[in-house]
Parts: sequence; C-alpha cells; structure tokens
Amino acid sequence: MTDLTTHLPSLEATTLDIAKNLIARESVTPADAGCQSFMADYLSLCGFTTEHLDFGDTQNIWSVRGQQSPCLVFAGHTDVVPPGNLSNWQTNPFDPVEKDGYLYGRGAADMKGSLAAMLTATSRFVSDFPEHRGSIAFLITSDEEGPFINGTVKVVETLMQRKQVIDYAIVGEPSSTQTLGDVIKIGRRGSLTGYVILKGIQGHVAYPHLADNAIHRASHFISKLVNIHWDHGNEHFPPTSLQVTNVSAGEASNIIPGEIAIEFNLRYSTEQTHQKIQQTIEQVLNQFADNYELNWKLNGEPFLTQSHDLIDAVSQAIEQVNGIKTSPETSGGTSDGRFIAKTGAQIVELGPVNKTIHQVNECVKISELEQLSDMYYQTMKKLLA
Amino acid sequence: MTDLTTHLPSLEATTLDIAKNLIARESVTPADAGCQSFMADYLSLCGFTTEHLDFGDTQNIWSVRGQQSPCLVFAGHTDVVPPGNLSNWQTNPFDPVEKDGYLYGRGAADMKGSLAAMLTATSRFVSDFPEHRGSIAFLITSDEEGPFINGTVKVVETLMQRKQVIDYAIVGEPSSTQTLGDVIKIGRRGSLTGYVILKGIQGHVAYPHLADNAIHRASHFISKLVNIHWDHGNEHFPPTSLQVTNVSAGEASNIIPGEIAIEFNLRYSTEQTHQKIQQTIEQVLNQFADNYELNWKLNGEPFLTQSHDLIDAVSQAIEQVNGIKTSPETSGGTSDGRFIAKTGAQIVELGPVNKTIHQVNECVKISELEQLSDMYYQTMKKLLA
Repeated sequence: MTDLTTHLPSLEATTLDIAKNLIARESVTPADAGCQSFMADYLSLCGFTTEHLDFGDTQNIWSVRGQQSPCLVFAGHTDVVPPGNLSNWQTNPFDPVEKDGYLYGRGAADMKGSLAAMLTATSRFVSDFPEHRGSIAFLITSDEEGPFINGTVKVVETLMQRKQVIDYAIVGEPSSTQTLGDVIKIGRRGSLTGYVILKGIQGHVAYPHLADNAIHRASHFISKLVNIHWDHGNEHFPPTSLQVTNVSAGEASNIIPGEIAIEFNLRYSTEQTHQKIQQTIEQVLNQFADNYELNWKLNGEPFLTQSHDLIDAVSQAIEQVNGIKTSPETSGGTSDGRFIAKTGAQIVELGPVNKTIHQVNECVKISELEQLSDMYYQTMKKLLA
Repeated sequence: MTDLTTHLPSLEATTLDIAKNLIARESVTPADAGCQSFMADYLSLCGFTTEHLDFGDTQNIWSVRGQQSPCLVFAGHTDVVPPGNLSNWQTNPFDPVEKDGYLYGRGAADMKGSLAAMLTATSRFVSDFPEHRGSIAFLITSDEEGPFINGTVKVVETLMQRKQVIDYAIVGEPSSTQTLGDVIKIGRRGSLTGYVILKGIQGHVAYPHLADNAIHRASHFISKLVNIHWDHGNEHFPPTSLQVTNVSAGEASNIIPGEIAIEFNLRYSTEQTHQKIQQTIEQVLNQFADNYELNWKLNGEPFLTQSHDLIDAVSQAIEQVNGIKTSPETSGGTSDGRFIAKTGAQIVELGPVNKTIHQVNECVKISELEQLSDMYYQTMKKLLA
C-alpha cells in the first residue's frame, strides 16, 4: 500500500484525503505519530501560527490566526484508543479503507474525521473571508483518551495564565448517534472512578473453612452495586450510570484468592455530587467487606453551556447542511470540553456518528465527512464572517 | 557436608538415615534424582524384583515380592514441590538437618519420610516373616505433585491390562494433623474445575445502552453460584464446596468489558456426580448469560474404601504403636489414591503430620519416623503374617 503519511499537506486535499492521512498514523495514546505537525503545516498554509506546548509524554498544539475577539477554538485530539484484538478487525485498523460508502480505521469517527473536517472548513473559510472578524484557533492534544494529565488541561492552564480569552469552543467529539448532526453536546456529565482492593483470607481450595474468598465477597458487592438506581437525570442530563470496568483476582487453580481488585466508573448528572455517590458506595461496600482499600479519582464535574450564541449557530448550520433539527444533549463520555469550560467559553461538541467508536471496525460515513466540514464552515460564517 | 546420596542402601540403615538420603536428592517434579534406583536397590536386598515403567518425563517403579494373593501395595512419590523462596528457609531445603527433634528438608513430610518408613518396615517384616502369605509391592512415581499424567495413572493402567490384582494399598501421603496417626484418609472428594468465558458486548462507559457489561452479568452469576447449597455431605464426606479461584476482565478505564474469564473448582462428596454438578451450574449460567464458553476438567472422581480389612488393620496398628484412636476421614486435597481406587483395591492413606507440607521449613518429627515404620510393620503383620 502507498504510505499516505508521506503526503505533504495541500489545500487541494479533500476531507477524506486528510482523514486517511491521519488514520494511517498509528497514534495510540499518548503517541501523536506526526498528526499535529501535519495539522500545523496545513494551518500555516491558512495563515496560522502554531505553538507546540508539550508536557511530559504528551504533544499539544495551540495554533492561531488573528488576535481579535471573539475567539473561536476548534478543539480535539490526535490520539486514538488501542485497536484491541486485531483478529476481530475486518481491515488493518491503521490502514484506512473505503468500503460501501464508509471509511474504516481506528480514529475514523473518534476523531480524525473531525480534525480533517475542521481543517478543510477553516481553509475554505479563510479563503472566502480573508478579512474575517475575531480570531480562529486550534487546541489539539495527544492524550484525550489517556490519563488527561498533560493535555488540554495543561494547555488551558497556560492560556488562562496568559489571560487568553476563549469565547466559543467547538469540540470535534463524535456527538451524533444515527445521522450526522442529530445530536450535539452542550455539556457533560461528571465522571468519577472508584478503585477497590477487597480483601478476604487466602487459602487452599480443599480447606474452604480456613479461608475467606475475596471473589465471593466481591460478586455480592458488585451484584448489589450495579443494581442501584441513582436518579432519573433532569432536563439537561441523562440518568447517572455506573459501570464496572476491571476486575482481577486469582493466583492458581487450587488457591482461594485473598484479594480482588475492582475498578468502576460513574457518569453522573447534576442530580448527584461526587460526595453523595462516594458515601452511598462506601455504605454498600461495608455490607459485604470488612477489609478493603477504597480510592477515588474525580475525572470531571458536570458542566453545562447556558448561553445560546454558539448553540444557535451550530444548530442552524446543521439544519442548513442536512435539514436536521439537532438535539442538544449532555449524555455520553467526558471530553476535553470540561477543561475548556473552566475558561468560561461556550462549548458545543459536534462530530460524526459514534456507533463504532472504541470498537473494532470503527468507521465513518464518507459522505458525512464533507457535510461535517460544511457544518463547521457555516458555523464560522455565522460567528466570524 | 558428606554427600549422603553416595551411601549405598543397607538394611542396617535407620528410617532417619534413609529419609536423609532421599531428601538430599533434589527431586523437584518430575525429577527423581536417583531416589527410585536407591529404593529398588534396597528392595532387591529384601527379595523384591523391580520393573521401571517410565512414561514421558516421569519415572515410575513397580517392585514386587511374591505372586500370591492378597497383594499389599505401598504407594507413593519421590518428587517434591519446588522449595519456593530460598531466603525464607532456615536451612537448605535439600540438605537434611536435624534440629530440636525435627528433621528439616523439602519432602521430609511429603513424602520421603513415608518412603523411608515403608522400606525399613518391609525389611523388618520379610526378615521376621520370610514365608509370609500373599505378596508385597511398591508403586512409586515421580509426578504426584505435577500434572499426574504419566505417573500412577499410567502404571495402574498397565497393571490392570495385565490383570494384576491389588487388594490393599497404603498410600504414604501425610494424613496426620497433630500427632502421627490421628487421621487416616479412607477416600477423597472429587475435584472438578470449570472454566467460563462469559460474553457481553464491549463498549464505551459513557454509552452503557449500547453495551452489555460482562462483569455485571458475571457478578450476578457468581453471586448466585456461590450461594448454592449443594449437600450436607454424608457419614464419610464433608459437604460439597465450590470456590471461584480466578476472575479476569477489563481493558481500559473507559471501556465496558465485552468478556470475562472465570475459573472455579468444586470438591464434591459422593452425594454428587460431576454430571449433576455440571448440569446445575449450566442452568444457573443460562439465567445470567446467553453467550458463553464453558469447559470442564474432571481432576478426580470421589472414592471411598468401604471394606474394613485394611482400615481395621491400620487403625489397630496405630493404636498399638502410639495409643491413638485414629479418625478415618476423606477431607483434604487429592492424592494418587484416586487412581489406584480404579483397581477396586481397599485404600488407606497414612503418613506424617501435614502442617508444614508445601511450605518453607518443611519438617517431620524424628521420633515419628520410626513410629511410622512400626505402624506399617504392624499393618503388614496383621494382613500377611
């Protein structure tokens, strides 16, 4: 196959061309594999100036055209989640393949397709409106799928120290569910992770009366935990949800395990606080365990965009491009929007259909790539033309 | 130190001398390190004829004196479990050391002490009763602690093909708990291992409605499974017990796992059959999973010595030697007795105190070595004199 990653950025490239170039780069978190340099080179052709703000193992760019207000930021990430079991993929995840109207590859929907659309929309906009008002910026990281320690959060800190104002941020996360633009995100649930080491007493399977099986205790705990009804959500937020993501215990076939490690994650609405959730879970744990370690990580508190300028511009752009009345929601995963929210910016997430993200055979509808570019373009036109 | 393993077999040697010689041989499964040749040479001095029946990496001997009925077999193994962390041993595990009335070394209790006692008991018996009735045999393997594929199970198959009858088998496993002879084993529970791969649908934690969490399903399954009351046991067997020994699931903190691996083991009484157990567990599994792989390994079916000749002879011998009324039990781990049981033989396990077996600083009380030899001798006298 041709090595797409050797293609130089060109303003003639289609959104599909650019998406394929980015997918061909094996940028599993926190690797960037040259995606950001490619984007910076492309943006320099559009009159942008790029600053590399790397922290630890993470690469970030802040690329700007203009210095005036209002400032519209395109935010996103070049990293992707691992492909998982390769034998379950119909194609090589890092070899972008067009098939039956879809583009397949890891990151096609989350979110290299969006990055490509942001670039072509920007190129078209600055060509059509070279004297546009305000400024346009790209805030791109390589650790959105990772521990999010050295990515957007650090860049935002740096920008806030400089008193950089961000008025609008369009995050390219795959917000759509069935058709491009059917859903946009105007806020996000909170995310809280719990880590439990639940302890029993190790022993030989032949002498169960001398042992206390940690897996048995854990199964009762988890079984109860996942049956908790947290809330119904509210006008802006879906109900709170808990998912156990990791369990691990066991030493040998004839040993009763003395401990088990459990990890779970909650996505919670503004009906909850992380304090309330932690208290409830600790009470359940105390019913089934008398010896444990419990640790928490608060990944993000819930946030919501209340002002309407950006939401209205994006909604109208969507309707204009494909005739859909979008649904503004707050469901789904966390995104780096939560960090940008701290600047006071209005935030909307708009990106491809998310059905296949983080799964094998991730894909995006090819026709929706140019539509997405058009939606970004129309939004810019409404806010900055 | 003197190399004990160079000592030639001598009928003058004490049980302690022989135990030390055997311990000095580093026979970690499936190695034999010359133990069986040493035993064969010793037994030839007592009028035995030895056949080496090696299979794969495993060495076995079948050594016989006489051809008449009844046939009394001493069964055991020359292999030992690995010593583990040497820095936790107070002495070198393969350098037999006498200290405060105990003999220390890997295999002292499991079961080189027993092998030594069998040899000295036999030497004394054939000297006292050269014209004894019946026949005496030794069935010794080097893989009892290993995968038990090429050891006793294969020798027994060979003997059964030859129509060799075994009437009584004394297995030298360390059956005693506090004092030599306080417990003998007259049968063993069955052991059945189950392996489940329970499948759901992988997804992102933020979109739980698109996924099907395999851990959640598994927790309900395990919670139900470990609450099953199988039976009360019976006169001879403790209740059936199920222990989950391994669970493993999880890929990343934001991924709902699509599958989980579960391993569990049952030690079951004669109130159950493995078919009945498998059927019950499959029914429970079907309540909580619609997509799974389930595999079974039958490690051993339960067996029980019902006739009383051997049990009575051994019990009386114990009482005669140290005044203890023994307790005939079926608890504890598996032993090669389960394979010899297939011949229809009466089986009793009698050996040293098992407190330190498979542990660091394994040891046996020196005074109990000669007592054990005496118990074996008195048993032979009752059955064959």
